[in-house]
Amino acid sequence: MDKTALFKLSYGVYILSAKDEGRDVGCVVNSITQISSAPATLSVSVNKDNYTNGCIAKTGEFAVSILSESASAETIGVFGFSSGRDKNKFEGIEHQTAPGGLAVLASGASAYLVCRVIDSLDCYTHTIFVAEIVDAQTLSAEPSMTYAYYHNVVKGKTPKNAPSYVEESGTSETHQRYVCNVCGYIYPGSREEFAALEDSYTCPICGAPKSAFEIKETK
Amino acid sequence: MDKTALFKLSYGVYILSAKDEGRDVGCVVNSITQISSAPATLSVSVNKDNYTNGCIAKTGEFAVSILSESASAETIGVFGFSSGRDKNKFEGIEHQTAPGGLAVLASGASAYLVCRVIDSLDCYTHTIFVAEIVDAQTLSAEPSMTYAYYHNVVKGKTPKNAPSYVEESGTSETHQRYVCNVCGYIYPGSREEFAALEDSYTCPICGAPKSAFEIKETK
Repeated sequence: MDKTALFKLSYGVYILSAKDEGRDVGCVVNSITQISSAPATLSVSVNKDNYTNGCIAKTGEFAVSILSESASAETIGVFGFSSGRDKNKFEGIEHQTAPGGLAVLASGASAYLVCRVIDSLDCYTHTIFVAEIVDAQTLSAEPSMTYAYYHNVVKGKTPKNAPSYVEESGTSETHQRYVCNVCGYIYPGSREEFAALEDSYTCPICGAPKSAFEIKETK
Repeated sequence: MDKTALFKLSYGVYILSAKDEGRDVGCVVNSITQISSAPATLSVSVNKDNYTNGCIAKTGEFAVSILSESASAETIGVFGFSSGRDKNKFEGIEHQTAPGGLAVLASGASAYLVCRVIDSLDCYTHTIFVAEIVDAQTLSAEPSMTYAYYHNVVKGKTPKNAPSYVEESGTSETHQRYVCNVCGYIYPGSREEFAALEDSYTCPICGAPKSAFEIKETK
């Protein structure tokens, strides 16, 4: 099986947010699809290792901030590269409270959706939540960020102190790095640093498990 | 609720194919997401009014042709604007047989995936099928077609005899047309022609029901 074929699927990039005993938590996901129109429903797939997964399962509600092309690498870094278990990810990120009380982004987002879980399905490492969209608001006319845009444009200008920073070599030299074989995300650290990560590490972009990473030649 | 916020979700464009008593059937979908990596699984949401839905439910297998930017408007037209109940959609479309026997596109596709259903979930007008990806093949290095690309580029050059053709007025005049409030698809016929469609009509792009269409000013 040619697994690179899976890179050809198209995705958006979203911040999924939920409540944890009144505290705001969230993570980056790419796996959101509208299902029906009347009533308006959507599905989202979340890795079980993501702290946000358990919070959604417990509270039955979540919000989606649809990232626009202007979303900062820092926003994606904070929500994708750290865990809500021990960090308030919304601190320092411009956010607002959607009707119902969930936190959503106030900038770098083209729209937000507020959702109530109506069903779920277990699928190996992930849970698929199906939810009714109970509120929705467009925030900007800017194009939404696609995963391809993130990969081709945003990563090319990641600031040095962002967690997703990869040092520019200035030459055409290649490096062997761990690459997510689901979404193509390149782990920015060395092979040794990757090996030292906890087994519960998941891809900050698509939520794939650590075992989905393979060593590849990258620039 | 501001339903235009739902237009901000990002999608690819895919031909979903299945077998109907040995005959090849298929339809256009935008709702495909990889779920887990090991084993590789995906989900696809299909309107119950699509003939392909029942064929997948019966056979437990389907293939996905991931459209590339070079996919023709005719391909999207044939798979999106006609029903497999009474027409062989693959006739006249360049296709090949994937391992296992399902038909997939031979041109205008960046990759194909062969899938076996492992679970499903009913959601109002749609069925969400969860499937293991049992085979996959990259077909071209060309970028995959996103729904935004289809909407902005392909529809702008739809040939006159394609089912999706909308007559160019040559002026900045607007027309009142039925527009899918889920994906933004503009029904190419007049309001009267739309009204005369069967109640089982569904959006050829996203599968939303006829009731999801609203009259809007369009160019």
